[in-house]
Amino acid sequence: MEVYLDNAATTKPRDEVIDIINKSFNECYGNPSSLHRKGVEIEKMIKKARKQVAKALGANDGEIYFTSGGTESNNLAILGALEGNKRLGKHIITTKIEHPSVLNVFNALKERGYDVTYLKVDSSGLIDLQEFKNSLRDDTALVSIMYVNNEVGTLQPIEDICKILRSLKNKPIFHVDAIQAFGKIDFSLKRLNVDLLSISGHKICGPKGIGALYIKKGTKIKSIIFGGNQESGIRSGTENVHGILGLGVAADIAQKNLKGNIKKMNILKNRLLEGIKEQINNIKINGLVEKRSAPHILNVSFLDVRGEVLLHSLEQDGIYVSTGSACSSRKKSYSHVLKAMGITEKEMEGAVRFSFSPFNSQEEIDYAIERLNYHVKELRKVIGGK
Amino acid sequence: MEVYLDNAATTKPRDEVIDIINKSFNECYGNPSSLHRKGVEIEKMIKKARKQVAKALGANDGEIYFTSGGTESNNLAILGALEGNKRLGKHIITTKIEHPSVLNVFNALKERGYDVTYLKVDSSGLIDLQEFKNSLRDDTALVSIMYVNNEVGTLQPIEDICKILRSLKNKPIFHVDAIQAFGKIDFSLKRLNVDLLSISGHKICGPKGIGALYIKKGTKIKSIIFGGNQESGIRSGTENVHGILGLGVAADIAQKNLKGNIKKMNILKNRLLEGIKEQINNIKINGLVEKRSAPHILNVSFLDVRGEVLLHSLEQDGIYVSTGSACSSRKKSYSHVLKAMGITEKEMEGAVRFSFSPFNSQEEIDYAIERLNYHVKELRKVIGGK
Repeated sequence: MEVYLDNAATTKPRDEVIDIINKSFNECYGNPSSLHRKGVEIEKMIKKARKQVAKALGANDGEIYFTSGGTESNNLAILGALEGNKRLGKHIITTKIEHPSVLNVFNALKERGYDVTYLKVDSSGLIDLQEFKNSLRDDTALVSIMYVNNEVGTLQPIEDICKILRSLKNKPIFHVDAIQAFGKIDFSLKRLNVDLLSISGHKICGPKGIGALYIKKGTKIKSIIFGGNQESGIRSGTENVHGILGLGVAADIAQKNLKGNIKKMNILKNRLLEGIKEQINNIKINGLVEKRSAPHILNVSFLDVRGEVLLHSLEQDGIYVSTGSACSSRKKSYSHVLKAMGITEKEMEGAVRFSFSPFNSQEEIDYAIERLNYHVKELRKVIGGK
Repeated sequence: MEVYLDNAATTKPRDEVIDIINKSFNECYGNPSSLHRKGVEIEKMIKKARKQVAKALGANDGEIYFTSGGTESNNLAILGALEGNKRLGKHIITTKIEHPSVLNVFNALKERGYDVTYLKVDSSGLIDLQEFKNSLRDDTALVSIMYVNNEVGTLQPIEDICKILRSLKNKPIFHVDAIQAFGKIDFSLKRLNVDLLSISGHKICGPKGIGALYIKKGTKIKSIIFGGNQESGIRSGTENVHGILGLGVAADIAQKNLKGNIKKMNILKNRLLEGIKEQINNIKINGLVEKRSAPHILNVSFLDVRGEVLLHSLEQDGIYVSTGSACSSRKKSYSHVLKAMGITEKEMEGAVRFSFSPFNSQEEIDYAIERLNYHVKELRKVIGGK
């Protein structure tokens, strides 16, 4: 049996996505900037995809800008907004548990003279709202806080942050990295008062190499890539037509199935969690599992086991999991997220991330529990015998 | 009959490219950063694609970095190289006829305090080597000159420029935008002594949304997008796997068929040119047609006809052409390339770009000549009758 439980790293594109991409390859291969029919027809299809993404987010069509992926969306949001709003000041706020595509932008900005506050998180991965309030200054230009953490699934209190920011006289720009939230959390930009929000295609059964940035109407932002002024001048470069159409379809389906998908993934997550708790001792759940937690991510430390070794053991049985986020899994150091949560070294060493998609089945979960139990026991025997 | 003669704007992806992309969608959908088999297998495929691109360019695998397209390659080359070599100086050189993805980067750099020389071109679109030599200074940090102009097809003397630069004590970094040259001109980086060279997927029957930058070993460059440090830290972001594999296959085939394709496109170009010259009077060829000219681009002004109107007339007969580059065709102003070449307003108004692929046939060209002749006559009647 093949059980892919690494859906927070990337997902298999769904058939409807593959279909529209093949249609664009074979029939609608024009350049959207071309004046003739082959350009115009593609422009119409991009318009539809933009509408699909906008609707899924509760935004207006004109507020959606396509990028090459989540990383570029985060970079454009932060670098572009600061460049477009220099008068706001040189203080910026983020958290210690952001994705590298936010953290490394902040690190670069620090080198360029910005004063950076990295908010702490508690043992479940949540920021402290009082600490956040205290960190705000008159010269705070931008706040960037992720919606769902990619390693442990904890949800930050985005609505509360919005409320705090709304009450300020000098309101900083608020960017939300929603790459792990889109299609997994029921939110709408109609209610959330954020200025910038990033999403990615390949996390929602869409293609890789495509993402989008929501830019609330009126938010000043400067482009970070210069050229032919596509995407209303915000993102130059011939449009990644196949990617855009694929993202549109994926977003549309993700939104339509959202409630059912959340319910389904929550059932899978709880089934795996209960199975692990019942059968395997000496474990620790990293992050939260019910409230304030995404339905598709479960992070568990198996003590006295090395996560990477367990990963390869499970792989032999066709089960695919992750030790941290895919982006940092090749590094030998411990996860910056687990570290910030104050997890012990021993616990970090045995941490495994399981991440679900609506395409996983309960049967797959039961198989995973059975194999997990077997391998954890075997690996502990080896350690015990040393 | 459908005759697509807008291949400099974009090309239809070839079947082999579509096949490998579908394979990656269905079978190899992992994240290359994942530690398990699904990550490792994709990493191997990316390695192969990098080798294919490297071989096609006459480069080493380690010198190829994937980007989201030609525009990003040009931006990364120029901005990244200047950021990585600040001590070289604040003077930079380009030409007046570059693509907007180079020109607009230079314009942004000018605003940031760089001193920019925009080289003139003659009536055929060629720079003057003596002017280039004279423009070089001790503090010249970077030179960016395109290989093939996208609107008129003129080839710049890249080898001569390399020779001049090699003789300097303070050698500036040399970047070549080869987006319209790759797959159309027989060049190899083994012989060309350039430091940075940009290519794009969708100009060579590959997918959109993918490109590459050649960075000669030892050339210092800083990334312009920050994150998970993919592409050896030069370009963060989950790899556009489908795009990379598609580009690899397209580059491989383009290289293997290069000589035959050049010959075939030259025949098509000359057939169209001779047909136009024979049948239609009052025309002007913009740029060169034999030596120092790309085989896939022919730019012709039909006097007393508006290019855009002719484009739409031809479209009714299934013939797709362009009035300028696709990137600037939506703007109402005249082409900056034709302007720099000193073409008169009247000539610019009637300019049409025909661009070929190896998939075009002589029969298609004959049909295009016949319809061109008809429409130009009809349109001139209308103007004559005013």
